[in-house]
Amino acid sequence: MKTLTWDSEAPRAELARLKRLKPFCYGMTNFVAANLSANVLLAVGAGPAIGAAMDWPQVFARHASAVWINGAALMSAVTPEQLRTAARAAHEAGVPWVLDPVAVGAGAAEYDAVIKSLLEFRPTAIRGNASELVALAGGEGGAQGVDTTLSSDKALAFLQKVAADLGTIAAVSGPVDYITDGREVLAVPGGDARLTQVTGAGCSLGALISGMLAGAENRLSAVAAAHAVYARAAERAAGARGTGSFAIRFLDELSLIDPAE
Amino acid sequence: MKTLTWDSEAPRAELARLKRLKPFCYGMTNFVAANLSANVLLAVGAGPAIGAAMDWPQVFARHASAVWINGAALMSAVTPEQLRTAARAAHEAGVPWVLDPVAVGAGAAEYDAVIKSLLEFRPTAIRGNASELVALAGGEGGAQGVDTTLSSDKALAFLQKVAADLGTIAAVSGPVDYITDGREVLAVPGGDARLTQVTGAGCSLGALISGMLAGAENRLSAVAAAHAVYARAAERAAGARGTGSFAIRFLDELSLIDPAE
Amino acid sequence: MKTLTWDSEAPRAELARLKRLKPFCYGMTNFVAANLSANVLLAVGAGPAIGAAMDWPQVFARHASAVWINGAALMSAVTPEQLRTAARAAHEAGVPWVLDPVAVGAGAAEYDAVIKSLLEFRPTAIRGNASELVALAGGEGGAQGVDTTLSSDKALAFLQKVAADLGTIAAVSGPVDYITDGREVLAVPGGDARLTQVTGAGCSLGALISGMLAGAENRLSAVAAAHAVYARAAERAAGARGTGSFAIRFLDELSLIDPAE
Repeated sequence: MKTLTWDSEAPRAELARLKRLKPFCYGMTNFVAANLSANVLLAVGAGPAIGAAMDWPQVFARHASAVWINGAALMSAVTPEQLRTAARAAHEAGVPWVLDPVAVGAGAAEYDAVIKSLLEFRPTAIRGNASELVALAGGEGGAQGVDTTLSSDKALAFLQKVAADLGTIAAVSGPVDYITDGREVLAVPGGDARLTQVTGAGCSLGALISGMLAGAENRLSAVAAAHAVYARAAERAAGARGTGSFAIRFLDELSLIDPAE
Repeated sequence: MKTLTWDSEAPRAELARLKRLKPFCYGMTNFVAANLSANVLLAVGAGPAIGAAMDWPQVFARHASAVWINGAALMSAVTPEQLRTAARAAHEAGVPWVLDPVAVGAGAAEYDAVIKSLLEFRPTAIRGNASELVALAGGEGGAQGVDTTLSSDKALAFLQKVAADLGTIAAVSGPVDYITDGREVLAVPGGDARLTQVTGAGCSLGALISGMLAGAENRLSAVAAAHAVYARAAERAAGARGTGSFAIRFLDELSLIDPAE
Repeated sequence: MKTLTWDSEAPRAELARLKRLKPFCYGMTNFVAANLSANVLLAVGAGPAIGAAMDWPQVFARHASAVWINGAALMSAVTPEQLRTAARAAHEAGVPWVLDPVAVGAGAAEYDAVIKSLLEFRPTAIRGNASELVALAGGEGGAQGVDTTLSSDKALAFLQKVAADLGTIAAVSGPVDYITDGREVLAVPGGDARLTQVTGAGCSLGALISGMLAGAENRLSAVAAAHAVYARAAERAAGARGTGSFAIRFLDELSLIDPAE
């Protein structure tokens, strides 16, 4: 296992590419996290579009530089078929796409079935908390609503197997984040626990991962870079007084973090 | 009538319980207020989930520690039947639930009928401005869109009757907030008028009330505690420069308010 | 062409009227921008209601002082028919209404067709970036997702023709904003490029334009005033550290900008 932070070389190179490409990222996400997700991408220089108005899914998913699909988009007038259309369009066009299986394993069987059906379209990466990733792969997660009750450490061995079986990158958030393609495991420590008190912060990481995947040669490194950038921005926001200004300061730091520094 | 503020003992005990229980609160709400509502609950230590993706309403409403239902969820891909499903599930499972009848009485008869039909499932508490609560109970409110044109004082006598008739707690926001179960009336003064210039602040109070009701022995006291916490956090944010930073500072103060202080 | 800023007399008179009237503004907009749009209107003293719950479109659009319709509302459980109902209701009741054709011309033909069909109801003003306005009128815009790839200067001649043909006011955002009714052109310079890094800032300008149109005698002047207020508030927020606090500071300045200063 390799440990990676913003002080490593790789994340800086990945972010520099994002800032150079200014990728158009198309997201299908939920209305709680949509605003922050867009602002996270704008802060680092990407161009987001969100939503499933009419024929946006089939058109935008195909033409985007990257796509992220957050399962809870199903609460935002998005139909299961539209989710599948976007995932299929991205897959067939060779556009990298990120699956965020929010709340999978929390007991809503119909919802879970739709999310699991998206695996058919081979997500480039799957990100979530440990409970969600384990549940997505058929394990026992023990989620409660959208929060996790399983530590990321315990899930690691299982995740390696999942990533290998599905041919994807599994990225799990926790006190230490783990990113694996089934063979290599990258550990990203750091961050700030107050990120868990900002609604949509996890969902917005899914958006940032999509931005990092646009044009990436080493996708494992690109996903880990999103985690490393997130962690460092959160650390730099640590002086914020409460959870409200922490979220704002976190966005500030994302917009200021400089690959050349 | 008893006057209650954060300097009273009860609200501190109620908030201490919330922080101990970290209740999972499930909300069906509108997309304007959803982000702030989740952040308000996270700020005080509760765990929110919002939205009606597929079978979430029937599953999450039953398993939550508390539920809040904001009528304007009907603008967020939520069907009347889903609202009713969640309300029924909460009622049948004995989960306390809060009804926020946003904009009832403003002239949209079909919308009003759906909201009124939820009274069948016996909300634990109903919160809103005076116009909405009066209109919900069949009086003449005179609402204009989502804003109130009726003072909370004038509505008080009517509200006591409503609370008694419906067997619920009526909680009305205004320069002074009133909370009544039909017999006792608690008055919560204070707060800051700029809260009315922060969109979703009222809706988010509905979310906080649900969090306070989780595990509460004295529900009238629990609802009033949410109002008292809100008022004090708003007062502590009074130094903010404009309405934007007021909202952020308000969240900060919510996250810092300490039952032991 | 006349140049207009907050230092001109007209925008102050227009904002003073808005603050006196406190217009009820009804919006159909998308869930990414809804929160900021409402907060922008609240900051200057208007009263917003957003969303298409049940019969809100036909009732609220008719009784509002002004209406704004953002095409991307189609991603928020709003049907094409509801958009058309609101536009028709506003048009028939003589309520001024603003069309924001977000992402028109970006390749989603079904979406574009719905937005273009709204022109039948004669929007009082159409606001967007240059690509969107040109595409709406049948020209070649070259949009990419929701962002523009066409400068506002190049679009100007075309926009004058569009405004004249449609009998509307065309308002385009860019380094310099242009507002024209087909004969007169008003140029509003200034602002801050970081506004383009705040999601929903453009959509929220559509909301503010609707507020300015309520009760306006000179509609061209009213639309330009919204742009001038926006530009000055952005300039006053220029000291903000990053994009997160810029958005908050921008709202602060909007709430503090004083017609009498």
